[in-house]
Amino acid sequence: MPEQVCISLDAMGGDHAPDMVVAGAEIALKRLPHLTFLMYGDEARLRPLLAASSQLEAVTQIRHASQEVTMDDKPSVALRQRRDSSMRLAINAVKDGEAQGVISAGNTGALMAMAKFVLKTVKGIDRPAIATYMPTQRGETVMLDLGANVECDENNLVQFALMGEVFARTLFGLERPSVGILNVGIEELKGNESVKKAAAILRAIDLPIRFEGFVEGDDLAKGTVDVIVTDGFTGNVALKTAEGTARLLVHFLRETFQSSFAAKIGYLLARRSLQRFRDRMDPRRYNGAMLLGLNGIAVKSHGGTDALGFSNAIGVCHDLIANRLNDSIKKELASFEEAMSRTDLEDEILPMAGNAD
Amino acid sequence: MPEQVCISLDAMGGDHAPDMVVAGAEIALKRLPHLTFLMYGDEARLRPLLAASSQLEAVTQIRHASQEVTMDDKPSVALRQRRDSSMRLAINAVKDGEAQGVISAGNTGALMAMAKFVLKTVKGIDRPAIATYMPTQRGETVMLDLGANVECDENNLVQFALMGEVFARTLFGLERPSVGILNVGIEELKGNESVKKAAAILRAIDLPIRFEGFVEGDDLAKGTVDVIVTDGFTGNVALKTAEGTARLLVHFLRETFQSSFAAKIGYLLARRSLQRFRDRMDPRRYNGAMLLGLNGIAVKSHGGTDALGFSNAIGVCHDLIANRLNDSIKKELASFEEAMSRTDLEDEILPMAGNAD
Repeated sequence: MPEQVCISLDAMGGDHAPDMVVAGAEIALKRLPHLTFLMYGDEARLRPLLAASSQLEAVTQIRHASQEVTMDDKPSVALRQRRDSSMRLAINAVKDGEAQGVISAGNTGALMAMAKFVLKTVKGIDRPAIATYMPTQRGETVMLDLGANVECDENNLVQFALMGEVFARTLFGLERPSVGILNVGIEELKGNESVKKAAAILRAIDLPIRFEGFVEGDDLAKGTVDVIVTDGFTGNVALKTAEGTARLLVHFLRETFQSSFAAKIGYLLARRSLQRFRDRMDPRRYNGAMLLGLNGIAVKSHGGTDALGFSNAIGVCHDLIANRLNDSIKKELASFEEAMSRTDLEDEILPMAGNAD
Repeated sequence: MPEQVCISLDAMGGDHAPDMVVAGAEIALKRLPHLTFLMYGDEARLRPLLAASSQLEAVTQIRHASQEVTMDDKPSVALRQRRDSSMRLAINAVKDGEAQGVISAGNTGALMAMAKFVLKTVKGIDRPAIATYMPTQRGETVMLDLGANVECDENNLVQFALMGEVFARTLFGLERPSVGILNVGIEELKGNESVKKAAAILRAIDLPIRFEGFVEGDDLAKGTVDVIVTDGFTGNVALKTAEGTARLLVHFLRETFQSSFAAKIGYLLARRSLQRFRDRMDPRRYNGAMLLGLNGIAVKSHGGTDALGFSNAIGVCHDLIANRLNDSIKKELASFEEAMSRTDLEDEILPMAGNAD
C-alpha cells in the first residue's frame, strides 16, 4: 500500500466552492484511497457537506478560517489583510509540514503572492512560474510561464526550462522530455533579447536537457516539443487564445449540426464518437496548474471548474508529491549550477546571441 | 463603372508561384473586372501562363525581374542584394505611382524591410505594423501587430490602435469599430508598462475612437472587440496558436468521424453542413495581411496559399485602395496629434499608469 499523502485544500476558492471542493475530494479519494485532507474554510458550511460522505469525513480534518480571499482582492491586499483566510491557512499547512501540497481554485495572483511569501522560492530560482499541460496532436505538452511574470529575462527563461523539464518528466513519466522556447520564428536570429540569450545559454551548457531551440505558436497544438518555455505575458495570451479558439470551433460545430435535418441525423449517428471528441478536449481533464519553483507543492485549479475538474487537480497534486517533484527540481538546479560554472557565458555565449539582424 | 485599379504583383513569391499568382489574378478579375495588373517576375515563365487567359492577358503587363527573394534571405540581405527582384520592383511600382497597391506571398521580413525602405512610413507613425483579420463568434476581428515589431512601447501601440481602427472601418464598413489592447487581465493594473501606458493614453485622449480597455487571449475568438492591439511578439504567437488550435480540432474531428461505422454514416449525412463549417474556417478566406503605416498599400499573402487564397488577397488590396485607406489613416493621425496637444500626458496620464501593483 502506498504511503499516505496529505493535501491541504482551500475549500472556499472557486466559483462553486465549497461544494465542488468537497465533492472533488470525494471523487479523488475513490481513485487514490491513501489521500488525507486538511480542509480550510467556513466550518459551519463544510461540516454538513462532509457529513454526507463518511469515507471522506474519515480522512479529512476541517479547519476553520474566518476569512476568504475574493477574486477582486489585489495580491498585495490579500497578503496583508487575509492572514486568516482559507487560502493562506491552507498554504501555511504546507510550510508547517502538516500537508505535502496545497490546492486552491481561488484568485491566482493572491495564491502566487501568498505561496511565494510563505513557502519561499527554491534556491537558484529567481521567480516561480505557473505551468500547465494541454492536449496536442502528439500527446500532451507542458507550457510555462502562464502569467506569474509579465516580463522575463534570459535567466528566468532558463530556469523555467529546467523546471518545466522536470515537471514533464514527473508528470508524464518521460525520460528526456524535449524543450523549446516560444518565439516568432525558428531561426536563431529571431525574437527579443531574452529569448535569444536564453536559447544561447541552453545550447551552450553541458546538461542532458534536450533543448530543441525555438518553436512557434502553432507548435503548441502540434506537440512539437514536450515543454514550451515563454514569458508570462505571452504564455497567458497563448493559453487563453488556444482555449478560446477551441471553444469557437465547438460553437461553430454545434451550429453546423443544427443547420439541417440531415446534419441532425448525422449528429445522432456520430454522437458516441463525438462524445469522445469532447472528452478529449474537456478542459476539466487539464485542470491543475502548478506553481513551480517554491519550497512546496502548490496547485491552482481553474476557478470555474466542477467537482470532476477539481478531483483532477487533486490528482496532479498527488502525482507531483508522490514523485517528489521538488527534490528533482533541486537536483536539476544543482547540475545546472555545476554546468554553468564550466561554461564561459559572459565572454563567449551571450555576446553572440546579442547580434540580431 | 468603377475607376480602374492597378495592382502590382510579386509573381515569384509563395510556395506555388508563379502559377497560383496568375490563376489568382484570373479569379479576382472575374469578380472585379476593373482591375489591371503589373506582374513582376521571370518573363519566360509568366508569358505562357498569361497566354492561357486572354481576359487576364489583356489587362496585365508583364515586367521582367532578373532576381527573386527567397524565403531564407535575411531582410537586410534582401534589401541590399535583391534590387532587381520581383518583390522589389513590384514595390517600386507603387512608389512610382504606376500601381496603387502591391501584393506578395514571399518572405515577410524582406517584404516589410523593402516596403519600409521604398515607400517610407506615414508621418506620425514610428513603425509600420502587420495586421490581419480572423473569424470570431461575433463576426471578424482585426489584430495587429503580427510580427513586424517584437518589442513595442506605448507610442507604437497607440499608433497601432489608430491604424487598426481605420483598417477595420475601411475593411468591414464599420462606423465606429471597438478597440482593445491584448493583456493578461482586464484590470487596469495588469500587464507590462507599454500596455498600461498605451491604455492610459487611449483612455485620456479626446478622440471618437471606441477604446474598450484591455482584452485577453480568448477575446480573440469571442470577437469581444473589432480591433485587437498588441506587440508583434505576442500577436505573432497568438495568431499562430489560434491557427494551430483550429487545425488540431479539425484533426481530432477527422479522427472522430473515422472511429466507427456509425460515425462514418453520420459524417456522410452531415457532410454538406460540415463543408460549410470548413468553409467558414478556411484560412484562404482570411488571406491578406496588411502592412499598415506605409505611404502605399502593401498586402502580404500567406506563402502557402493557392489561387483562391491569392485572389482573396487581391480582393483585400483592392478594397483598401478603393476605400482610400491611407487617406483615412492620415486624417486619423492628424486628429490624434491635435487631440494630444490638448492632453496633459506627461504630468497627468502616464505617471498614473506607471503605478503597478
